[in-house]
Amino acid sequence: MSLSHMEPESMEKPETTVWASKAWALLSAVRGQSPLIQCITNFVSMDLMANTLLSAGASPAMIHSIVEIPDFTPHANALYINVGTLSPDWLPAMKAAAELACRTGKPWVLDPVASGASGFRLRACLELVELKPTVIRGNASEVIALSKASVGPTKGVDSSHESTDAVDAAKSLSKASGAIVAVSGAVDIITDGELVVGAHNGVAMMQRITATGCSVTALIAAFVAVDPSHAFEATASALSVFGVAGEMGMKMANGPASLRMHLIDSLHGLDEVDVLSRVNITGFS
Amino acid sequence: MSLSHMEPESMEKPETTVWASKAWALLSAVRGQSPLIQCITNFVSMDLMANTLLSAGASPAMIHSIVEIPDFTPHANALYINVGTLSPDWLPAMKAAAELACRTGKPWVLDPVASGASGFRLRACLELVELKPTVIRGNASEVIALSKASVGPTKGVDSSHESTDAVDAAKSLSKASGAIVAVSGAVDIITDGELVVGAHNGVAMMQRITATGCSVTALIAAFVAVDPSHAFEATASALSVFGVAGEMGMKMANGPASLRMHLIDSLHGLDEVDVLSRVNITGFS
Amino acid sequence: MSLSHMEPESMEKPETTVWASKAWALLSAVRGQSPLIQCITNFVSMDLMANTLLSAGASPAMIHSIVEIPDFTPHANALYINVGTLSPDWLPAMKAAAELACRTGKPWVLDPVASGASGFRLRACLELVELKPTVIRGNASEVIALSKASVGPTKGVDSSHESTDAVDAAKSLSKASGAIVAVSGAVDIITDGELVVGAHNGVAMMQRITATGCSVTALIAAFVAVDPSHAFEATASALSVFGVAGEMGMKMANGPASLRMHLIDSLHGLDEVDVLSRVNITGFS
Repeated sequence: MSLSHMEPESMEKPETTVWASKAWALLSAVRGQSPLIQCITNFVSMDLMANTLLSAGASPAMIHSIVEIPDFTPHANALYINVGTLSPDWLPAMKAAAELACRTGKPWVLDPVASGASGFRLRACLELVELKPTVIRGNASEVIALSKASVGPTKGVDSSHESTDAVDAAKSLSKASGAIVAVSGAVDIITDGELVVGAHNGVAMMQRITATGCSVTALIAAFVAVDPSHAFEATASALSVFGVAGEMGMKMANGPASLRMHLIDSLHGLDEVDVLSRVNITGFS
Repeated sequence: MSLSHMEPESMEKPETTVWASKAWALLSAVRGQSPLIQCITNFVSMDLMANTLLSAGASPAMIHSIVEIPDFTPHANALYINVGTLSPDWLPAMKAAAELACRTGKPWVLDPVASGASGFRLRACLELVELKPTVIRGNASEVIALSKASVGPTKGVDSSHESTDAVDAAKSLSKASGAIVAVSGAVDIITDGELVVGAHNGVAMMQRITATGCSVTALIAAFVAVDPSHAFEATASALSVFGVAGEMGMKMANGPASLRMHLIDSLHGLDEVDVLSRVNITGFS
Repeated sequence: MSLSHMEPESMEKPETTVWASKAWALLSAVRGQSPLIQCITNFVSMDLMANTLLSAGASPAMIHSIVEIPDFTPHANALYINVGTLSPDWLPAMKAAAELACRTGKPWVLDPVASGASGFRLRACLELVELKPTVIRGNASEVIALSKASVGPTKGVDSSHESTDAVDAAKSLSKASGAIVAVSGAVDIITDGELVVGAHNGVAMMQRITATGCSVTALIAAFVAVDPSHAFEATASALSVFGVAGEMGMKMANGPASLRMHLIDSLHGLDEVDVLSRVNITGFS
C-alpha cells in the first residue's frame, strides 16, 4: 500500500493498516532526520521528555530563556510549549517563541496542563492558543476547560470528563483555533474539527507515571516536525506509537517505575513488525 | 483488631501490630481517595516525588506560582513545601500557600532541606515554621539546626547527628512549633513533643538515591491528607510504608538506580500482608 | 606499581595500567572522602547528576541562589557550573560562585552546554571562562564554539565536529584559559594545552540518555575535589570510569532507559578489577 495514496482527511473510514504504515513511516523519518525539538516545558517532565525524544531518534533542546529565542528558535524543527509549572516570568518567552513559530510557519505544539487550575493559567493558555498552535494535546478536563473558555460551553460533556465525552469540546476548540486537537484518555481522540479518529493503544498504568502525557506531546512535536503538512496524521501516529511502546513495555513491567523504563527502551527498539501489528487507529463517531 | 479502638496518643506502648493496621488503613485510604497534594518543592526531587505520590495512589500537583495559590491551593487536600533549591523569588509563594493552609485548617508539611546551609535558608525555614506546619520532616542535622534557631541549643546532641541523638531537638521543635516532627535516619523518629516512636523500616542504600527524603515527606502529606486529625500516626505510617517498599525493592536491586525503580514498583504493589508483616513502629525512649 | 611514582605530565606515553591505577585511586578517594560538590546546573540534569554523584560516593548539593553562595560555597570541596537551561537571572549566581572559587583556590568545573546556541549563551560562557575554571568539559561543537570565541578560529576542524577534530580547538582553549579541557565523543580527549590523552571507554548508546554529559562532568568535579593538584589526571580518570560503568551497564541493558539504570548501579558497584581491567586511557597524537 503506497503512502502517497493515503489521504486520511478524505477517507470516511481510514483503515488501521493505512494508519499503521503512516505511523511507521513517520517514526522512521524521525529516526532518520533527528529533528531538533525546542521544549519550553515544566520542571517535572524535562527528564522523561528529553529521554522520550532521544529514544525516538529526535534531538531535544530545553531552552526557555526569552533572550535566546531570536537566535535559537529559528533552528528548531518544531517548538513545544507546556505550561505545567507555569509562572509569570516564563510566559513571555513562551509567547515570544510561539509568535516566532507562528510568523515563520514553524510547527508548534501546545500542552495546556491543568488549564482550568487557575485564572492565570487559563488566560495564559488562551493567549497561547491565539498564537496558532499546530496541535493542542490535553486530557479531557484540560481540553474542555480550554474549549469552554475559547468558545463557550459545549453540550454532551458530563462531569466525568471521559475522553470520549470531550469530542464535542475538542471539535469546537479545533474549529475555533485552527489546531489539530488531541484528547488523551483510555482512547486518545484526535480531530481536525471535522474528522475524528481514535488511537486505541497504551495501557492504563501509564497514567501512574508522571510526565507521560507531557512526553507524548513532545513526541507529537517530533512527528509533526518531519511532516508538518500532515499534522493530523502525525498527531494520531505519535499517540499510537507511544502507546505501542507502553504496551510492549507492560509485558516486562512489575509496576509504574519499571514500566517507565521498559516503555522508553521499547520506544527505542520498536521495529516495523511491532508498529504495523499494533498501531490501532480507527475512525470515531 | 478494630482500628476504632486504636488511640496511640493514649497508649504507653503502642504495639507494632496496631501500628501496622493503622499504616495499612491509611495506605488504603490514600489509594481509595486519591488526595490532591500540592507540592512546592525543589527541582531535583520533582520527578521522583510525583512518581512516589502516583504509585501510592495520590494525585500530585507541582504548582508553585504565587499567582495561582488563591485559585488552586483551596482545592488541594494537603500542601507540601520543600526548600531544597530555594531562591528568594520562590519564598513568597511558599509563605502565601502556607498562610492559606494555616488559615483554612488544611494540613501542610514542611521539609527544611539543608536548613543550616545558609542564613537565608534558615530564616526562610523559621518563617515557614511560624506558619504552623502540621508536620516537619528532616534529617538529624536539619532538625537540630532548626530547633537550635527556634528554641536555642539542646543538650544531648553530639556532632555526629545520628537520628537518635536528635530526639531532644525534635521534641523541643515540636513543642515550640506545634508540629509533629520526624527525623529520618537509620531509625526514623517521630514525636508530637511528648510521645516518641521509632519507625524501623527501610534500607541504607535508600540514602544513595537522591530525593528519597523529599519523596517520603510528600508521602507523609498524602497520609495526613486522608486523616488530618491523626497527623502523628499518619507521619509514622508513611515513613514506615515507604521503608517497607524500600525493603521489598532491595530484594530485587543491584544498586541504587534499580532500587529506586523497585521501590516505586513495590510501593504501588504493596498488599495487606506486606504491610502487616513488615511495618515496624515501636515506642522510643 | 606505586602511584607516587606516577607523574603523567612528564611521561611521553602514559601507560594504560598507570592510568587505570590512578583512576582506581581517585574513585576510592571519592568513596572515602565523600566530597561535597555544589552543582549550579540545568533543570534537565539535576536528577541523574545527583544520583551519579551519590553512586560514586560523593555528596551533591544543588544550591543555586546567589544569596546562599557566601555562606555555602566555602564549604563545598568543588563547584560545578552547567549552563544547560541558562537564563539571565541564574547567571549572576554562577559568576559569584565561580569568582569565590577562583579567589579561594577551590577547584571548579564548567560545562558550556550548547555554547554556540545563542549570543547570550556564548557571552555567558566566555565570562565564566574568564573566572578560571579548573576544567572545561564539552562536546566537540561546544568546545569549538568556545575556542573560536575565545581565541579565534582554529584550523584542522571540519564541520563534522568529531571529537578528534576538536583537538586543536581544545588545546587552544586550554592555553588561553589555563583550564584542563575535555572533549567528549567516541573517544574522549583531554588536554592541558600540551599533553593530550584519549579515554576510550563508554558505549554509543549513552548519547541516547539525556544528561550523561552533564553527569560525567559532575563526576569530574568530584574527582578533582579529591586531588585538585592533578586536575588533568582526575578529568581523564572520571571520564574513563563513567565510561566503564556504561560498558558494564550495557551488558545488562535493552535500551537507553535500562542502560541509564544499570550504568548508575555499575558505577556504585565498580570494584578494583573492573577498573584496572577496563580503564583505557592512552596518549593521543
